[in-house]
Amino acid sequence: MGNADYVYPSNVEGAHRVAIPPPQPFVKSLKCSLKETFFPDDPLRQFKNQPPSRKFILGLQYLLPFLEWAPRYTLEFLKSDLISGITIASLAIPQGISYAKLANLPPILGLYSSFVPPLVYAMMGSSRDLAVGTVAVASLLTASMLGNEVDARENPKLYLHLAFTATFFAGVFQACLGFLRLGFIVDFLSHATIVGFMAGAATVVCLQQLKAILGLEHFTHGTDLVSVMRSVFSQTHEWRWESGVLGCCFLFFLLSTRYFSKKRPNLFWISAMAPLTSVILGSLLVYLTHAEKHGVQVIGHLKKGLNPPSFADLVFVSPHLTLAIKTGIITGVIALATNTSLMTPAWAKAQKRKGHQPPSSHEDIIVYGYVQEGIAVGRSFAMFKNYHIDGNKEMIAFGMMNIAGSCTSCYLTTGPFSRSAVNYNAGCKTAVSNIVMAIAVMFTLLFLTPLFHYTPLVVLAAIIISAMLGLIDYEAAFHLWQVDKFDFVVCMSAYIGVVFGSVEIGLVLAVAISLLRVLLFIARPRTLALGNLPNSLIYRNVEQYPNANSVPGILILEIDAPIYFANASYLRERIARWIDEEEERIKSSEETSFKYVIMDMSAVGNIDTSGISMLEEMKKAVDRKGLKLVLANPGGEVMKKLNKSKFIENIGEDWIYLTVGEAVGACNYMLHTGKSNPVKDHEVETWNNV
Amino acid sequence: MGNADYVYPSNVEGAHRVAIPPPQPFVKSLKCSLKETFFPDDPLRQFKNQPPSRKFILGLQYLLPFLEWAPRYTLEFLKSDLISGITIASLAIPQGISYAKLANLPPILGLYSSFVPPLVYAMMGSSRDLAVGTVAVASLLTASMLGNEVDARENPKLYLHLAFTATFFAGVFQACLGFLRLGFIVDFLSHATIVGFMAGAATVVCLQQLKAILGLEHFTHGTDLVSVMRSVFSQTHEWRWESGVLGCCFLFFLLSTRYFSKKRPNLFWISAMAPLTSVILGSLLVYLTHAEKHGVQVIGHLKKGLNPPSFADLVFVSPHLTLAIKTGIITGVIALATNTSLMTPAWAKAQKRKGHQPPSSHEDIIVYGYVQEGIAVGRSFAMFKNYHIDGNKEMIAFGMMNIAGSCTSCYLTTGPFSRSAVNYNAGCKTAVSNIVMAIAVMFTLLFLTPLFHYTPLVVLAAIIISAMLGLIDYEAAFHLWQVDKFDFVVCMSAYIGVVFGSVEIGLVLAVAISLLRVLLFIARPRTLALGNLPNSLIYRNVEQYPNANSVPGILILEIDAPIYFANASYLRERIARWIDEEEERIKSSEETSFKYVIMDMSAVGNIDTSGISMLEEMKKAVDRKGLKLVLANPGGEVMKKLNKSKFIENIGEDWIYLTVGEAVGACNYMLHTGKSNPVKDHEVETWNNV
Repeated sequence: MGNADYVYPSNVEGAHRVAIPPPQPFVKSLKCSLKETFFPDDPLRQFKNQPPSRKFILGLQYLLPFLEWAPRYTLEFLKSDLISGITIASLAIPQGISYAKLANLPPILGLYSSFVPPLVYAMMGSSRDLAVGTVAVASLLTASMLGNEVDARENPKLYLHLAFTATFFAGVFQACLGFLRLGFIVDFLSHATIVGFMAGAATVVCLQQLKAILGLEHFTHGTDLVSVMRSVFSQTHEWRWESGVLGCCFLFFLLSTRYFSKKRPNLFWISAMAPLTSVILGSLLVYLTHAEKHGVQVIGHLKKGLNPPSFADLVFVSPHLTLAIKTGIITGVIALATNTSLMTPAWAKAQKRKGHQPPSSHEDIIVYGYVQEGIAVGRSFAMFKNYHIDGNKEMIAFGMMNIAGSCTSCYLTTGPFSRSAVNYNAGCKTAVSNIVMAIAVMFTLLFLTPLFHYTPLVVLAAIIISAMLGLIDYEAAFHLWQVDKFDFVVCMSAYIGVVFGSVEIGLVLAVAISLLRVLLFIARPRTLALGNLPNSLIYRNVEQYPNANSVPGILILEIDAPIYFANASYLRERIARWIDEEEERIKSSEETSFKYVIMDMSAVGNIDTSGISMLEEMKKAVDRKGLKLVLANPGGEVMKKLNKSKFIENIGEDWIYLTVGEAVGACNYMLHTGKSNPVKDHEVETWNNV
Repeated sequence: MGNADYVYPSNVEGAHRVAIPPPQPFVKSLKCSLKETFFPDDPLRQFKNQPPSRKFILGLQYLLPFLEWAPRYTLEFLKSDLISGITIASLAIPQGISYAKLANLPPILGLYSSFVPPLVYAMMGSSRDLAVGTVAVASLLTASMLGNEVDARENPKLYLHLAFTATFFAGVFQACLGFLRLGFIVDFLSHATIVGFMAGAATVVCLQQLKAILGLEHFTHGTDLVSVMRSVFSQTHEWRWESGVLGCCFLFFLLSTRYFSKKRPNLFWISAMAPLTSVILGSLLVYLTHAEKHGVQVIGHLKKGLNPPSFADLVFVSPHLTLAIKTGIITGVIALATNTSLMTPAWAKAQKRKGHQPPSSHEDIIVYGYVQEGIAVGRSFAMFKNYHIDGNKEMIAFGMMNIAGSCTSCYLTTGPFSRSAVNYNAGCKTAVSNIVMAIAVMFTLLFLTPLFHYTPLVVLAAIIISAMLGLIDYEAAFHLWQVDKFDFVVCMSAYIGVVFGSVEIGLVLAVAISLLRVLLFIARPRTLALGNLPNSLIYRNVEQYPNANSVPGILILEIDAPIYFANASYLRERIARWIDEEEERIKSSEETSFKYVIMDMSAVGNIDTSGISMLEEMKKAVDRKGLKLVLANPGGEVMKKLNKSKFIENIGEDWIYLTVGEAVGACNYMLHTGKSNPVKDHEVETWNNV
């Protein structure tokens, strides 16, 4: 210790041995690692130690969660669910029509999609707060991907059938991910990616609305900023002021109700009702002034009646099958990645932080409320109400919902955050609120569709824009810049890719950069030199602890990540450079000779065959330089593999220490006494810090 | 300590603080991390503190390494290089012709490719032992990828031009990887992938040789086992026994020289000369017996003269441009991944371990010699002779070599391990051995090509098979099975994909599985419960150290990997399960209440915004359960980001300890005295192990 009154516990016998974990039979360890990979949350825990009859009931409840809460359903629950169900229906109707237009599909599909899928989810979903519906980003993606090959105007029937088929495949893909417990794939779309992608998509969607706002007949097929701007400004003579004025008025109305509701959180229903109010006011205005004859485009005729079956419309033959599958998979993943009940905390937190939150233009309040209460949203809806959501099970529910939807004239639905937040805030208790919404939509479909005849498209555009503005989360981007520059780059690349390229380019770019980031994480682990903290046996990184002193004659390196094939070459070169630099330093400073290289393996969680070869190579290189390689604290997995590959025999068991302190002690003993390895003699201890 | 005579150093003041590393300006930290990412070996180190004139000379030498050794070249070096150059030329000529046939290219291209590229490499390459030449796997890949779109028989000219174009793009791609310092991308083809892929490719190549061995006229275009077997056994009546007997004799001859040389390592030249001897013997036999008229196919006319220029033949227009680019990139990467001077130690080690090594059918001896000497091969050629190879610089050299080659009628060349090992063993001193080989090939091209007229194809097939058999490295596969089961699965998938699917399927499968493995590594880090080692302050994983005791009332968890977006969700669920299980255990055992969750962050090398959100979420969940979250030993990067995101304020600085021992001490103090956080009071220490 370099400190006279330090007495090392005399009963501790020398240094400790690093244990090799007891060998496990292959099948057992395979079973264990498969379980950890695919069932980290151990979803079948509740089935343990139960009689068979109970197991059967639990199993049914597992598959159809409504069986669990239905028997305990009370009249009071119904009251809450009625109110929240009607609130979300008032949102679902105008938004559904708007988003269907965005997907270049008949507007009635938006209503169909708010009828069947919520009923399916109410049976199979675990979340009690999630509201089912279509989303803008998936609608835009559908339009953009299908539109590349099939023109929605020239061939509306084929386009419609392809949209159903894509929905079908999205459902199959989602259900498969869930069944195969591969839900974690969605986690690879990082928060930063999604922030950038969503903001880009929102920008693009807003730009598309310029067509309706300006009352243009012709518009570019491109979605990028450049072609939209060129298209808009090349036909300034076609701009219709009537349409523009109407659009601006409604946008102002929607944004101001949102602002007002944000100021007084308890009046959240004002902005919740605003879209429906706009639709009613707009329709009345057109009907009374016959504005449809003065350049204000309207929805036109909507067929009465419930969802017609569409199973026969699914296209399972070439030439467009690949397109449908591709569209299905991509929209399906995006739908999952932005889904409320699967939201990662980072995403949920960003939603919360924003304070001004999208589609309904009113969950800002709820979200705002959350900030006040300090409760994170997203998956934490469940956390807050103390129930658990199994992501993979949810994926199966969404998959089933979309498969059922594709057979009943619906297109892709998911659980949009905006609507779920409204649902939550309106006090929903169970998934019955979804059933109430479905019934309200059914009622609309059966009796009220003629009322939408005169609804001006420009009002729908205003509703979309007001919803989209909240998705552009510049505060999140700023937060990323502050905390993690690389995350910020990922975010901006996704945004720029979507806005200046296309939705697909942005998505590919974002996924590629996210993957690249993961690969860089793996490929470039850090190596750190450790020093001794004064008056202690603790060795820490000298960059973080500037007062840590390096030990003369000994280079202590910490490797900061598992050693895998992807970083083995790098680590070999980097460590060689550390040793070269230390040798040069010693040479120039004429210090005591450099004798030992201690590698602290605490942070090396795992190693593969390439990593072991790297260590062997390292040892030879170090030996050739007349130095000695010493390992400190290799973990269980690492020891197991080093043992199997005979590296422990190679390096000698006596050169592996349990702590850096003990390794330094042994090296100092040898350096100063000139004796050979004390083989974990207790003499070592007194040499710990010379 | 639970041990009376243990006295804790009284002068150590309480617990230590975890330091937040001093903030760095953004530009500096960006520069630093870019340097670590792209220049880990600091290749420009030698330029530091040098006068400008010296810098210029060093720069020239850096670009053209031959300038460095040329002035010091001696007559003695020349003697060694002459011998080794002629030895590798005797290998290069028959192998070059064989591999060109394998690529469905005119045989003369094999000779062309052994003339220009070695000269380019001799100027630009850093390795003194590498011998340049074509390789079987890249040849097969070229044939298989180009053959998918263009038939080499029906349209030989287009096929040839596409092969040049693919070589050109391979060169451009390799040079770009080097210039952009992205060489590490090649590291992502793990050792296990390459073992499986190479063995599969070797199997496929051997199967293709059945055509020549059996003297068949017609043969399947497929490369998979099933179609080859069907093709072979559907035309048993076409089998030519003359061809078969000849093939088997030569194969026996080649394999037995190999076996002999392996037994007596100093006679390695016997198997080095065997291929050329076979060619001469075979040609003589055919010439004397007129066997070409009895079903033994021969090479036929080879044009005399040096490489004709082929720059004008490069195809830069559609429709085949994409094909050429794709083929170029894939063969370029494969050429790099199997290149001697870029070989990873794992791969080199496997080569060494095998003892019976391929193409030349004779570096087995050299390799065998290595095993005796205990020196790893591969990049370690350089390590052994004490010079350094910069992988990215080598890539530029290979790229330039292939660009030059594509303009002079050569196809893809690289530095095959087999030939390099022969070169090394024959005693080469510098890259002059490549020049000697090129001169010998030039001599052949100018004067000796007519001699190959009667060379039977079946002899070439025997040379290829004898070379390929060594590539099937079942011992490496067995080693993988023993040490790392997952690596074994990766290896077998690549093998099965190549043999039963196609070379491309195998490659895609192997890359996908390698990537999946990286992603799984990231997505599923391990969490471990720690316990106290008896009579110490050391806390270690209870699985590895069964004698470690858990501390009552405190759950100590270690996270084994950096926390990133890809594993944040998983970790949240897994840690929640740890806490749940601990709560259940406590409940059933009626122990003291469960109060603290200590997270040991030593192995958490880095964290991103998603990871921070996960921690915040965790803290809330733990708080709600009435527990307290304590962090131990977060590293520099982690502390920096936790500080920026205000998590440190959130959790409270007093709940972050430098070691697990100190954290446990503080928690025990609070548990047993009922007092609040001792704020790193030295009283803590005495409560370390109650």
